[in-house]
Amino acid sequence: MTTDAAGMETLRAQVERALADFVERKLPSADDPEFAPLRTAADELLSGGKRLRPAFCYWGWRGAGGTDVPGIFTAAASLELLQASALVHDDVMDKSDLRRGMPSAHRRFQAMHEKSGWYGSAEQFGEGAAILLGNLLLIWSGEMWRSSGLPRESLEVAQPVHDHMRSELMCGQYLDLLEQANGENTFESALRVALFKSGKYSVEQPLRLGLALAARELAPWVDDLCTGYGRRVGIAFQLRDDILGVFGDPAQTGKPAGDDLREGKRTMLVARTLAAATPSDARTVRRLLGDPELDEDGVATLRGIIDGTGALQECEDLIGDYLGQALAALDTAPVTSESRAALTDLAIAATSRRT
Amino acid sequence: MTTDAAGMETLRAQVERALADFVERKLPSADDPEFAPLRTAADELLSGGKRLRPAFCYWGWRGAGGTDVPGIFTAAASLELLQASALVHDDVMDKSDLRRGMPSAHRRFQAMHEKSGWYGSAEQFGEGAAILLGNLLLIWSGEMWRSSGLPRESLEVAQPVHDHMRSELMCGQYLDLLEQANGENTFESALRVALFKSGKYSVEQPLRLGLALAARELAPWVDDLCTGYGRRVGIAFQLRDDILGVFGDPAQTGKPAGDDLREGKRTMLVARTLAAATPSDARTVRRLLGDPELDEDGVATLRGIIDGTGALQECEDLIGDYLGQALAALDTAPVTSESRAALTDLAIAATSRRT
Repeated sequence: MTTDAAGMETLRAQVERALADFVERKLPSADDPEFAPLRTAADELLSGGKRLRPAFCYWGWRGAGGTDVPGIFTAAASLELLQASALVHDDVMDKSDLRRGMPSAHRRFQAMHEKSGWYGSAEQFGEGAAILLGNLLLIWSGEMWRSSGLPRESLEVAQPVHDHMRSELMCGQYLDLLEQANGENTFESALRVALFKSGKYSVEQPLRLGLALAARELAPWVDDLCTGYGRRVGIAFQLRDDILGVFGDPAQTGKPAGDDLREGKRTMLVARTLAAATPSDARTVRRLLGDPELDEDGVATLRGIIDGTGALQECEDLIGDYLGQALAALDTAPVTSESRAALTDLAIAATSRRT
Repeated sequence: MTTDAAGMETLRAQVERALADFVERKLPSADDPEFAPLRTAADELLSGGKRLRPAFCYWGWRGAGGTDVPGIFTAAASLELLQASALVHDDVMDKSDLRRGMPSAHRRFQAMHEKSGWYGSAEQFGEGAAILLGNLLLIWSGEMWRSSGLPRESLEVAQPVHDHMRSELMCGQYLDLLEQANGENTFESALRVALFKSGKYSVEQPLRLGLALAARELAPWVDDLCTGYGRRVGIAFQLRDDILGVFGDPAQTGKPAGDDLREGKRTMLVARTLAAATPSDARTVRRLLGDPELDEDGVATLRGIIDGTGALQECEDLIGDYLGQALAALDTAPVTSESRAALTDLAIAATSRRT
């Protein structure tokens, strides 16, 4: 497999085939029709996405000398089930209507209830079904990971990393809830949440998993690469997320314009804005941020302040800095040259994406 | 360990020590104070309960010749984490205020938000935090199970049973939601939900796990005992649950009187009632069942009909029948005599309980 666009497409196809096979085995579509809506929701969730996490895992594996065996695609693909689970639960927690431009899982279940004219609250049914779907995906992610067929010695080294990543994700999301609720919003606190909740689990840990599976040990160079490259790409990835949540094009993100503003997300971008804003602008930001009824004018006002304070440019510069440092760390790591090229491309893709 | 009350107490103490050790390792109380509420909630959840699932697992292990090694207490105790996770999510899905007479996890988090005067909706914060706590407990249950220290050969035989149990639980809960929503309520459909959602995972699968761990194979006699004894005790356990949900003493169940009626649960007991009721009584049942405002008089009316139709006695008789068949199956199983005695006691305890 090569590192060019065609190679990335092949990786994506392998990941998607592994996912389809696994889900078909767990919940056959020909099975009980009552479970069909669960299966449909799982299929929809797994049909899109950037497949970044599997790619970091796969290229970690290849970087530490792993070869193109089927098991690595299965192991890497399992990370998409964890991500799908997190998205379903996230949308329930945020009461989000949309995901990638389509109704979120709980809204789909709610619509099914409404259409069928069933008893009880359709909203409550939708949320309950989505919580269970998220649990099923979470359980499956662990099962698919373990049953990849990779050698036992590989899995035994990587399993503690895998366990840690999953707990850390949940603790990170909890920290995020706390942060939105108590309104603390320094750059440092937002960075901490970003790292816990998304940065580590999007880049650093998938990479570490791939490296650990192939190297069969967590050697010092593995750790150096994971923090020096992986963590920095993860932070830059999250900074890009912050920017897309405010300035992203709805046609590309699949989310309404300025959605993060309406949700009141306390991001690094917002923290930088508040730190640099005039007292009057800061008051405006605090007043509008998190207003669920925020309209286009309100979004435009906030965008103007975020841009005008220089916070947007600061975050763009930070992305560039982190990316530069990450690539420097990658340069000195003893990975295969093919993997180095792919991880370079991936770092750029993860931090310059538009969706 | 003996099968008498003192023996059961020792088993309970071992399970509780294993749980406390594991949770302390995952989320040290001296750690970051921000995670303290998660830890407190986990501790509270794990401080009570009948420990039936660990007991079935432990006595399955002993029944197939397993000895009193520390690993079996850890493996058995991990089932309590799965159960705690299910309870937290159940309470969110049902919007229940109470669990074992105390505020449910999401209400605790909600109260923390209200007390702190934080931003945003306290209810949404509470539900979000409880979803994450449930996820953490679900993840931990798998990790604790795998890291019990039992021999690898044992775990490899039992792991598919473990995976299956977890998926089945989620699918069963989904079936339950569907059933409440579409109002289907035959005895057969209620039995199917009861088996999926609770019966199998409360008795049959914990027993199968213990047997598989010790026997290191899923021999025909293991399967015979699990269905012949385990499944029947599971159904009787659920029938007892149905009765307690209507006639239970709030001081003992920790739930308001007639809570299942207010929630509109389509149980086997209700199905029997509807099948035997006069058309006028059936209309009354359909009208009152699921009314969230149902008062004491309403509960008394429904109790009167459930008793008057003979449905209550029918369910009591069924419990007796299932228990008898289960004990007969146990009688012919090649388990140790100590385990046979303990499993007899457990079957009686599980089906005649008052909480």
